[in-house]
Amino acid sequence: MNLASQNTIYALATAPGVGAIAVIRLSGAEAISIVHSIFYSIKGKQNLLSKASHTLHFGTLRDENRIIDEVLISLFKGPTSYTGEDTIEISCHGSIYVQQQIMQLLAKKGAVLAKPGEFTLRAFLNGKMDLSQAEAVADLIASSSEAEHKLALQQMRGGFSEELKKLRDELIQFASLIELELDFSEEDVEFANRAQLETLVSKVNGIIRLLIESFSFGNVIKNGVSVAIVGEPNAGKSTLLNKLLNEERAIVSDIAGTTRDVIEDTMVIDGITFRFIDTAGIRKTTDTIESIGISKTFEKVKQAFLILFLIDAKDIDAEQTQKTYSELTEMAKENNGIILPIITKIDLAKPVAEINFKNAITISAKTNENIDELKKKIVAIVKNTHNTGSEMIVTNARHYEALNSTHVSLNNVEVGLKQNITGDFLAIDIRKALYHLGEITGSITNDTLLESIFTKFCIGK
Amino acid sequence: MNLASQNTIYALATAPGVGAIAVIRLSGAEAISIVHSIFYSIKGKQNLLSKASHTLHFGTLRDENRIIDEVLISLFKGPTSYTGEDTIEISCHGSIYVQQQIMQLLAKKGAVLAKPGEFTLRAFLNGKMDLSQAEAVADLIASSSEAEHKLALQQMRGGFSEELKKLRDELIQFASLIELELDFSEEDVEFANRAQLETLVSKVNGIIRLLIESFSFGNVIKNGVSVAIVGEPNAGKSTLLNKLLNEERAIVSDIAGTTRDVIEDTMVIDGITFRFIDTAGIRKTTDTIESIGISKTFEKVKQAFLILFLIDAKDIDAEQTQKTYSELTEMAKENNGIILPIITKIDLAKPVAEINFKNAITISAKTNENIDELKKKIVAIVKNTHNTGSEMIVTNARHYEALNSTHVSLNNVEVGLKQNITGDFLAIDIRKALYHLGEITGSITNDTLLESIFTKFCIGK
Repeated sequence: MNLASQNTIYALATAPGVGAIAVIRLSGAEAISIVHSIFYSIKGKQNLLSKASHTLHFGTLRDENRIIDEVLISLFKGPTSYTGEDTIEISCHGSIYVQQQIMQLLAKKGAVLAKPGEFTLRAFLNGKMDLSQAEAVADLIASSSEAEHKLALQQMRGGFSEELKKLRDELIQFASLIELELDFSEEDVEFANRAQLETLVSKVNGIIRLLIESFSFGNVIKNGVSVAIVGEPNAGKSTLLNKLLNEERAIVSDIAGTTRDVIEDTMVIDGITFRFIDTAGIRKTTDTIESIGISKTFEKVKQAFLILFLIDAKDIDAEQTQKTYSELTEMAKENNGIILPIITKIDLAKPVAEINFKNAITISAKTNENIDELKKKIVAIVKNTHNTGSEMIVTNARHYEALNSTHVSLNNVEVGLKQNITGDFLAIDIRKALYHLGEITGSITNDTLLESIFTKFCIGK
Repeated sequence: MNLASQNTIYALATAPGVGAIAVIRLSGAEAISIVHSIFYSIKGKQNLLSKASHTLHFGTLRDENRIIDEVLISLFKGPTSYTGEDTIEISCHGSIYVQQQIMQLLAKKGAVLAKPGEFTLRAFLNGKMDLSQAEAVADLIASSSEAEHKLALQQMRGGFSEELKKLRDELIQFASLIELELDFSEEDVEFANRAQLETLVSKVNGIIRLLIESFSFGNVIKNGVSVAIVGEPNAGKSTLLNKLLNEERAIVSDIAGTTRDVIEDTMVIDGITFRFIDTAGIRKTTDTIESIGISKTFEKVKQAFLILFLIDAKDIDAEQTQKTYSELTEMAKENNGIILPIITKIDLAKPVAEINFKNAITISAKTNENIDELKKKIVAIVKNTHNTGSEMIVTNARHYEALNSTHVSLNNVEVGLKQNITGDFLAIDIRKALYHLGEITGSITNDTLLESIFTKFCIGK
């Protein structure tokens, strides 16, 4: 990717396929003059170059004398456009043939097909947004639930990167004072107040820690909350799954309609995407717990954020059931999972004792009893997991890694300050922290990083 | 369909699915005020109502305090919009979730989901275009070849409907004079000059006839030129088909990428869509010509616009081959088809005589010999079929029927004039002709007709 490309780029910005209209976007120094050379308004040839920014113009696009389409031109002048460059959006009839013809004509006039994310890359390079905001644009386009959308929008509108930039600027001030000390190292002066530095580093590190902790929640929101439904065979597992999915069938098929790979049994409840994972029933009669089906179930239990352990109401006293529950509880604890016991089929048998299953929910998929309560419960569990009151949530693995690296460096600074180490050693770790913080917002960047971020975008954004 | 609906309507105008951006369109008296109530520009609340037509505005859409998305608003004031009403286009991030959220918000604010074609229907009802132009909008969106696109664009931009409207107006003048005569029927006056009327009717009828004749060509362009490839087994039929398709594979897959049903072995050559129809080889050794495979081949021959009859160069003298060719030629003649003999595999055997196969093309799919010439030939045959020099081509079956009805009525007028029949009888047929002509442009229309036309549109147009 030639990042500093000065070409005028074009791409289809709307979804591929046939629609009533399609939008083709151009950006670059030649955007307006290229379109000007092929555009004829209803009043004849008009000078698009003289038109004001943020105006709309109706007319035809022509290849010599051949009319390609009647179109609507949106004109934006840099720097007030999305990319910061002169930009044109051509709204044309939505046939694939028309789309192709217009793009061929733009290519003929010297525009170059945009690479994935190139419009947003230019917006970043032109200072219209920082790197974490640019990344949020891709997340926003891919978002399919309320929670996911909210986090992406927050991040795109500044989110925690504004805060990080402020903190980084404060750190830079101290860093420069310490660097200054190094120049006077023989004179043993301290320009940087150690007590103030300690307070600042502690504050920054505290915020970094919160952001790091938010990632497990952010990741769950972005990728869906994994919920393993486990239990003995005939515990009502499949019935419950079908019950939940049937009621949310519409939303499931909405998601299936997107081009993203569909995770089977995904559903959105109260704005949060859940990935329900069906498991093989745990056989209570077998002696060898290591049979293949059960080991797979346990594998899923280990990976799950939430484990629904289903118990048939009539089996509530069974010794094996209680033993399995204890094992699963232990397993969940080891893997930071949350286990929720659910007593099923209460329309058939009244549970005689619940004492061994704390906080159990009693349900009947058949009579619908407590199904809504179960949904509310699992939503509440997810929401309570991140209950710091902070709006700053990290969803991006790259940010998570950079925050962790920052955290390590700031810990070193904290330890160093306590041990009264010299400025030159402090400076090394502060510089590292600044570097990793800068990676998040894009203050520190390189072509390889940018390329790996923007090639994940769709073309046209 | 409540045709006179005064609702403000909304719909997704771009192709369904995830794109960089999506466009949601609103039209109606409340369009601007609805968007105004949920739109906040970067400078805070702004009065969209006071903005000029054809301007663009960047900001956020909000449901109470919740930000749904950052969007770009295109503002058009009636009557200078597409529909003739106040219109807003919302360009939002292309995630399905965002699209749905915005549409739900618009619904909450009182807008109603548009029915298929409702924007264009309003454009028609508001006099922005006539009915044949509105129909061409749908054709344009569905067009997938240059020829199809050209015809749709021509029709959308006025095409023959302008001409028909003028002719209809002239006929109306005569009709009113004749109606006037009827009021004075006892006095035996003639306000309408019979000689002038005869000239006019003859002129109109001549144009109608040309339009009717253009339909077979227009229909072929719109639906693809059907080409049956026939011949004895091993005549090189499949090899030729694969050869042609391989060379045009890219364009074939372009068409497959649309949501329209894909006709297997469709390809575009020189801007014209061809539908190649594979047929069972005609067995020369069988006595009973009525075997199932061969009768199916003959069925396809009857339906085809063009029949490529392939003859293996080594079989050129075979009596059976020449007999089959004669039969097929006869069959083609009966069904207005065109038959083209093609001598194949000339790399293996030099054709010794071509005398029995007039205008035959000799090819070798293996060495590529004359393959391009064959393509040029079939394109030329299609183009020569409609060589009247007229730009007026009818592609729409509804127009074709109305033209035929007009033609019948005008014939009656011509005959009546020759027989000097009285004005009251002439008036009946002129009125009928006016009615059918009016159906094409929509001067004469009714809700059932409009409904049947516009429900075939996609939503959002």
